[in-house]
Amino acid sequence: MEKPDLDTIRRRLETFRDERDWRQFHTLKDLIISVNLEAAELLELTQWKRDDELSRLRNDPAFQERLREECADVFLYLLLVAGEAGFDLLQAAADKIEKNAVKYPVERARGSARKYSELGDED
Amino acid sequence: MEKPDLDTIRRRLETFRDERDWRQFHTLKDLIISVNLEAAELLELTQWKRDDELSRLRNDPAFQERLREECADVFLYLLLVAGEAGFDLLQAAADKIEKNAVKYPVERARGSARKYSELGDED
Amino acid sequence: MEKPDLDTIRRRLETFRDERDWRQFHTLKDLIISVNLEAAELLELTQWKRDDELSRLRNDPAFQERLREECADVFLYLLLVAGEAGFDLLQAAADKIEKNAVKYPVERARGSARKYSELGDED
Amino acid sequence: MEKPDLDTIRRRLETFRDERDWRQFHTLKDLIISVNLEAAELLELTQWKRDDELSRLRNDPAFQERLREECADVFLYLLLVAGEAGFDLLQAAADKIEKNAVKYPVERARGSARKYSELGDED
Repeated sequence: MEKPDLDTIRRRLETFRDERDWRQFHTLKDLIISVNLEAAELLELTQWKRDDELSRLRNDPAFQERLREECADVFLYLLLVAGEAGFDLLQAAADKIEKNAVKYPVERARGSARKYSELGDED
Repeated sequence: MEKPDLDTIRRRLETFRDERDWRQFHTLKDLIISVNLEAAELLELTQWKRDDELSRLRNDPAFQERLREECADVFLYLLLVAGEAGFDLLQAAADKIEKNAVKYPVERARGSARKYSELGDED
Repeated sequence: MEKPDLDTIRRRLETFRDERDWRQFHTLKDLIISVNLEAAELLELTQWKRDDELSRLRNDPAFQERLREECADVFLYLLLVAGEAGFDLLQAAADKIEKNAVKYPVERARGSARKYSELGDED
Repeated sequence: MEKPDLDTIRRRLETFRDERDWRQFHTLKDLIISVNLEAAELLELTQWKRDDELSRLRNDPAFQERLREECADVFLYLLLVAGEAGFDLLQAAADKIEKNAVKYPVERARGSARKYSELGDED
């Protein structure tokens, strides 16, 4: 099967929603709450696990499948938020990368995890 | 400019990361924490706002721009998680829609916000 | 039974933890992740529910019991964070109320949900 | 100054709220969203920090002060949720510890971070 593109995913998602008449529940606030709840389920996969254990688990098929599913859930709700708010998620992502490139200049940010606001002249 | 596709976004994101030598910080746990922090910033846009106010704000260009940026941030970290974990986010989303279609059959789920686990025979 | 005070709760919580030899898992990061996961379970109780429905549910014993339990879970992890970080949660709360009273002067903040940073001179 | 007890904190918090006429904004949903946002600010303090760095920072007065403040913020919103929902947070916490003691029997749970649901007979 050919790899799906984002527009195909979005159409399938909207069909899924409309066949179940679920759009009535999709206020912006509840969709955004749902993004957060799914993000928390993703976070739960890391709870009580050290970095070395997570590195190892990344190659465990059952664990990878859980990661895949939770990431998919966050992503699907993001698509619904973007749909309700009327913007294109891919274009938003492209624009944000460009904005971040200005905010975190290579020569200042290299190798530093400090946030932009903390990147001073003396770095 | 042509609309970017997801592979282009992903490549730009990885270039952005590597030019700054930031991959060293990208443990699975911290990337997933970052998904959650950006999701919370998205949620903050809805704090203290009623549904009717949010419906109105959706058409406010400044508010929409903030929504776009926060959604983009969540999405970019999701792409980094998928990259580290070694799966394709679009394929994961397509698979999840199919799985949900089985989990929430149209005839049972229509018009109900109840979760799958609460959809009993007597519905 | 007499109403428990916070020191009693904390001692019981530490006994509970130590009898199970669980302190070894309690890194600051994982305890704080746990605060977030329990907060998300609390948030899940509000998902897809409108304000009027939640007002009504507040008087439903089964719903109130779920609220109670999820709030308790967040609180217990907060106590563990405070314990590991070496501060008193009640004193921290008292100090924060005083700090907020300075940050949000009554005459400026009355009736406004705007955040401190947005409270300008012209208000 | 004598150490404040929880009832004193709660009264001060309610006075703080009422002097600013803020209760009108305090729907259950927005208070619970606020618990989550403050929990995320607490989580942000751990972002990009390894366990050993966090162990060290725990003794850094500036870092500890930030931890204290964010924990206090989560706690204050929890108190407001409990107030709106009509239950006592300390009693809820005491009850939850008792419930957890039954759910995670010492002999089965000792030294294991697995969740209750995963603690089977063959352990």
